[in-house]
Amino acid sequence: MTVSDTTSQELDAVLAAATAAAGPLAALRPAERARQLRAAADALDAAAGELVPLAIEESSLPEQRLTGEVARSSGQLRLFADALEEGSYLEVIIDTADADAKPVPRPDLRRMLVPLGPVLVFAASNFPFAFSVPGGDTASALAAGAPVVLKAHPGHPKLSERTGEILVEALRAAGAPDGTFAVIHGMEAGTTALTDPRIKAGAFTGSERGGRALLDIATSRAEPIPFYGELGSLNPVFVTPAAVSARGEAIADGYVASFTLGTGQFCTKPGLLFLPEGHGLEYRLVEAVRGTSPAGMLNDRIRGGHAEVRDKLAGLGTVRTLVHGADGDAGVAPTLLATTAKQLLADPDALLEECFGPTSIVVEYSDPDELLAAAEAFGGNLTATVHAEDADTPTLAPLLDRLRDRAGRLLYNGWPTGVSVAWAMHHGGPYPATTASVHTSVGTTAIRRFLRPVCYQNTPQALLPEALRDENTLGLPRRVNGTVTTADVA
Amino acid sequence: MTVSDTTSQELDAVLAAATAAAGPLAALRPAERARQLRAAADALDAAAGELVPLAIEESSLPEQRLTGEVARSSGQLRLFADALEEGSYLEVIIDTADADAKPVPRPDLRRMLVPLGPVLVFAASNFPFAFSVPGGDTASALAAGAPVVLKAHPGHPKLSERTGEILVEALRAAGAPDGTFAVIHGMEAGTTALTDPRIKAGAFTGSERGGRALLDIATSRAEPIPFYGELGSLNPVFVTPAAVSARGEAIADGYVASFTLGTGQFCTKPGLLFLPEGHGLEYRLVEAVRGTSPAGMLNDRIRGGHAEVRDKLAGLGTVRTLVHGADGDAGVAPTLLATTAKQLLADPDALLEECFGPTSIVVEYSDPDELLAAAEAFGGNLTATVHAEDADTPTLAPLLDRLRDRAGRLLYNGWPTGVSVAWAMHHGGPYPATTASVHTSVGTTAIRRFLRPVCYQNTPQALLPEALRDENTLGLPRRVNGTVTTADVA
Repeated sequence: MTVSDTTSQELDAVLAAATAAAGPLAALRPAERARQLRAAADALDAAAGELVPLAIEESSLPEQRLTGEVARSSGQLRLFADALEEGSYLEVIIDTADADAKPVPRPDLRRMLVPLGPVLVFAASNFPFAFSVPGGDTASALAAGAPVVLKAHPGHPKLSERTGEILVEALRAAGAPDGTFAVIHGMEAGTTALTDPRIKAGAFTGSERGGRALLDIATSRAEPIPFYGELGSLNPVFVTPAAVSARGEAIADGYVASFTLGTGQFCTKPGLLFLPEGHGLEYRLVEAVRGTSPAGMLNDRIRGGHAEVRDKLAGLGTVRTLVHGADGDAGVAPTLLATTAKQLLADPDALLEECFGPTSIVVEYSDPDELLAAAEAFGGNLTATVHAEDADTPTLAPLLDRLRDRAGRLLYNGWPTGVSVAWAMHHGGPYPATTASVHTSVGTTAIRRFLRPVCYQNTPQALLPEALRDENTLGLPRRVNGTVTTADVA
Repeated sequence: MTVSDTTSQELDAVLAAATAAAGPLAALRPAERARQLRAAADALDAAAGELVPLAIEESSLPEQRLTGEVARSSGQLRLFADALEEGSYLEVIIDTADADAKPVPRPDLRRMLVPLGPVLVFAASNFPFAFSVPGGDTASALAAGAPVVLKAHPGHPKLSERTGEILVEALRAAGAPDGTFAVIHGMEAGTTALTDPRIKAGAFTGSERGGRALLDIATSRAEPIPFYGELGSLNPVFVTPAAVSARGEAIADGYVASFTLGTGQFCTKPGLLFLPEGHGLEYRLVEAVRGTSPAGMLNDRIRGGHAEVRDKLAGLGTVRTLVHGADGDAGVAPTLLATTAKQLLADPDALLEECFGPTSIVVEYSDPDELLAAAEAFGGNLTATVHAEDADTPTLAPLLDRLRDRAGRLLYNGWPTGVSVAWAMHHGGPYPATTASVHTSVGTTAIRRFLRPVCYQNTPQALLPEALRDENTLGLPRRVNGTVTTADVA
């Protein structure tokens, strides 16, 4: 099987079909779309035996990781089905008429969220399932009731094409309108689609440069559209002296395991580890890095990009190389660099560059004030992590406050790789972590990116959407005159 | 009193103070910020006797309208205080750790919303209070815990300056940190502030051209920021033959009253009225328009802009002038134009141009299909209105579906001018009605524009924000392991 770029005629047909599907898909009850998501999840699980080998071939990722990623992706589709069935995602608010309201009488107002229309998703290279064809952007957009046009990542075209066929078939069999989902290939098709007036939102996971270019396209359209990009993140980790004393070796081992996991190809890879001067962990860190096997990277372009940034960082006069990992036949070995917080503060732009792959930097700090200053040097990040002990608690608030201003998720005594798919998850952060820090790309609240509010004023029951009628046939949680209830409107 | 443009030194001090206030303001309990909003509301009400005459002098709007607008603005501040005390705006979601979760164990995850940081608000000309210094953008940003830098509209500088002083004093007396609120003057100060990295979001109400220019600045920054602009809207009204038969004269009168209200200077002014051929209401419409007194417009620039677009529309070969309102010493008299749906569909760009002021167009349609086609010709709007009778109900769904795709608020047998400030209100819509159709600028959900999520993972109780601790001391509604509750975490 070879996969060709989508032609402009093919793209036009895809966009026309997505546009035609938008109304019927939006009109389905949430429980009907939930059934479709569960059907897609089941089909994905059933096809794991066929898809995982394709993914191995195209991504160099190991079987166990990919099998787990399929389970994560199908579980994610089912979590969004749960959210549809629960119904609060519709955010129904009803204020019944109040003739006595001041300064003016209030009409009957009924608000809910409705889908934006067709969404263009740019798939990522590093998660062939969970941030690709059957990934979180697809799941949340379909849950919202928005048709999805998925621009496949060129790193795994055959897997994308085949996964797309499986999803299209499962959705169709479960009653989704034709055009609900389609996979397209080729950067030209992707950028052309992004400028097409039929596309009403974009989502992206990838590099800062690529994401920014697409953001600029989306916002400079005649009709600008929301563009939800997840771009770059350094994911710094800050370790207190007390934590080093209590469990320094475990921290060293955990850090190396986290930054080399998946050959460092995670958006949440810890890129910097702040340790107090005199931490005494250098030998342990070096041994742990040396003990990590080389592994293949996703593709030549990513391997080359990693080597370029790694060598640039290692070549800085302010950086020591603790372990230089070579690129060999067995893959890429991890690299560990070292610098000081003083050097970082003297030239933050040089040192705070994301190196996508198995390279990370140990940064020694001299005192808590220097650590705070270093924390302030960061821009937006997906995560920031603190390792501390109970004795640190009274003094940690200033650090956490600074990190909260700069990161979407704050971890305590953990590691940022691994993102739970849950109601409470937030996977986002200030720019450049994302292009839209108000939103998340993981967790049930990701649905909201593809919905907009509509308010019906003084509209007869028969003309209201089912979700807004007095009788709450869908059993939705609704805020009625200020109180959340699943009861009918009295 | 004369008001000078803000100098670059003054602006720098304002931005520094707002930045310094961001942390302390965000750290306040919601109930404390609620108290500050109520203090601001009380101060505004108490100063009405001083402020309304200033507003009359600078806006040409009548006293009764302005007095009502003060009440609306103070009521809006109090509604946001209610929302803070209710607490669901924080969107707390807690998933406690689950070692048995599949495919991987789940850590303890606790999500809430936190303020974005200093917000720059561009005030509107047409609401000297409700969309200006003490307006909805100010109220919702302060409610979110974001300091506000308000760029005054040049149409009412003295009112803006004085209202700002009153708000600053009231907020300070109620315990808000210095720098929580400031008023700046001058377009250069405004655009400079919008490019300043210390500003984390923008809000705007005004023209499509001005709003688009500011949107482009906000999105092309090195760190792009959300820009919530409310721009242009035509607010079409669609009348069925049955409605004409049942109450045609009342509809004619209501329409003329709505499009001439406030001299047509509302973003929700009905710009087009679709009537069936042979409606027989032309005489009534003309009489109603002729019976409407001329009135002053906000300023010379707006009067000139209205005259220009009015005369351009009237000069189209496809448009008949039913009443040509002159600009005279007594003000601007309303203008009523007429065309057909066929003409509109033949050249929608020419006829679908917003004319800000007391001008509107009657559009005759021949049959329901033509009405649907005309509905599809519209871009994004704040509102769309249908006048119909019970007998129409079975056939109205296609029209309402098309309008829902294009408007933020759908009215039935009403008029779009007048926007209730309520939990369920949505004041927004697809571009160009707004630059961010996912959000609203009126109603309690407007707070969300200035908040972003943060997730704490496995963080000790003592280091969590009060809102996320097991003990729910704030009494917040929180989703805990899937269920919304105000109880403590077990």
